[in-house]
Amino acid sequence: MLILGVDPGSLVTGYGLIETAGSKYRRIASGVITMKPSDSVAIRLRKVYDGLVEVIDEHHPDEFCIETAFYGKNIQSTLKLGQVRGVAILAAVHRELAIAEYSPREIKRSVTGTGAAAKPQVEYMVKAILKIDESFRKSDEADGLAIAICHAMHMSAPQQRFRSWEGFVKEHPERIRK
Amino acid sequence: MLILGVDPGSLVTGYGLIETAGSKYRRIASGVITMKPSDSVAIRLRKVYDGLVEVIDEHHPDEFCIETAFYGKNIQSTLKLGQVRGVAILAAVHRELAIAEYSPREIKRSVTGTGAAAKPQVEYMVKAILKIDESFRKSDEADGLAIAICHAMHMSAPQQRFRSWEGFVKEHPERIRK
Repeated sequence: MLILGVDPGSLVTGYGLIETAGSKYRRIASGVITMKPSDSVAIRLRKVYDGLVEVIDEHHPDEFCIETAFYGKNIQSTLKLGQVRGVAILAAVHRELAIAEYSPREIKRSVTGTGAAAKPQVEYMVKAILKIDESFRKSDEADGLAIAICHAMHMSAPQQRFRSWEGFVKEHPERIRK
Repeated sequence: MLILGVDPGSLVTGYGLIETAGSKYRRIASGVITMKPSDSVAIRLRKVYDGLVEVIDEHHPDEFCIETAFYGKNIQSTLKLGQVRGVAILAAVHRELAIAEYSPREIKRSVTGTGAAAKPQVEYMVKAILKIDESFRKSDEADGLAIAICHAMHMSAPQQRFRSWEGFVKEHPERIRK
């Protein structure tokens, strides 16, 4: 199974694509979509959407997962982050991918064992789990891969959660009101 | 000139399309895109994007304008609003429309003469300016039209502002770095 993890940000959006076979994970692709501070909001949103659609169309992932927002920031940066999240999710919607969301804590805990792990720890464990030797250009790239690993671990856990409305409907057709 | 005004919201997104000829404004279309509280974020974002693309493809507006966010709300609702704004702006970007933004204050001032106007005042003036007799189903519909009227007034003002990066580049080709 191919899983695409996305870490949205108003200046840098990281993504990581991993292949899972049982408990073995392998990196297929990873990178960052960077915006210039001088880019208009229109250009930023187009870059993120187009960039993710390009990754999806090249690799055809089966699942899409994204970090839920970090609520500690200020209102203005939250709005900007929301805009980027919106178009990132829309890219997945337009390619009919199921969408899963994980909090920063869940992601850190899945990858490092502790929800309070620091960035270098996450990066170290992502490299160890995926057997990657070289350094990442930006931590957002490691974060994209960390989200994909987190999702892979949740998928293989015995207590599977519903990751999308579509998934829930598929499992519970009787819940649809005629 | 045809102007599409959009008032994004996490449950209701209002839109209004007006035609301007000099200082005369006429309503061409207006309405709301409503989301159910039970809709997943994926379904909400798809509804807003698809709804606006449908309006754009039916009427081919020349300009697109949107309300800037109201920053007084809490972080979580700001994130949700950001996501809706993101896909609304992307709909305009994908249809190659110039994008203008106005604050709630600017919109109220343009339509009613005062930036502190209450909702019923805005609605009353929108109906008077566009010679609309019937009531709006939701105030968001009036807000969509109010944003379009605000943009029309800014467009016809002698001191025109740049409404998009594209517009700025067109007027200032010498500012592009080779």
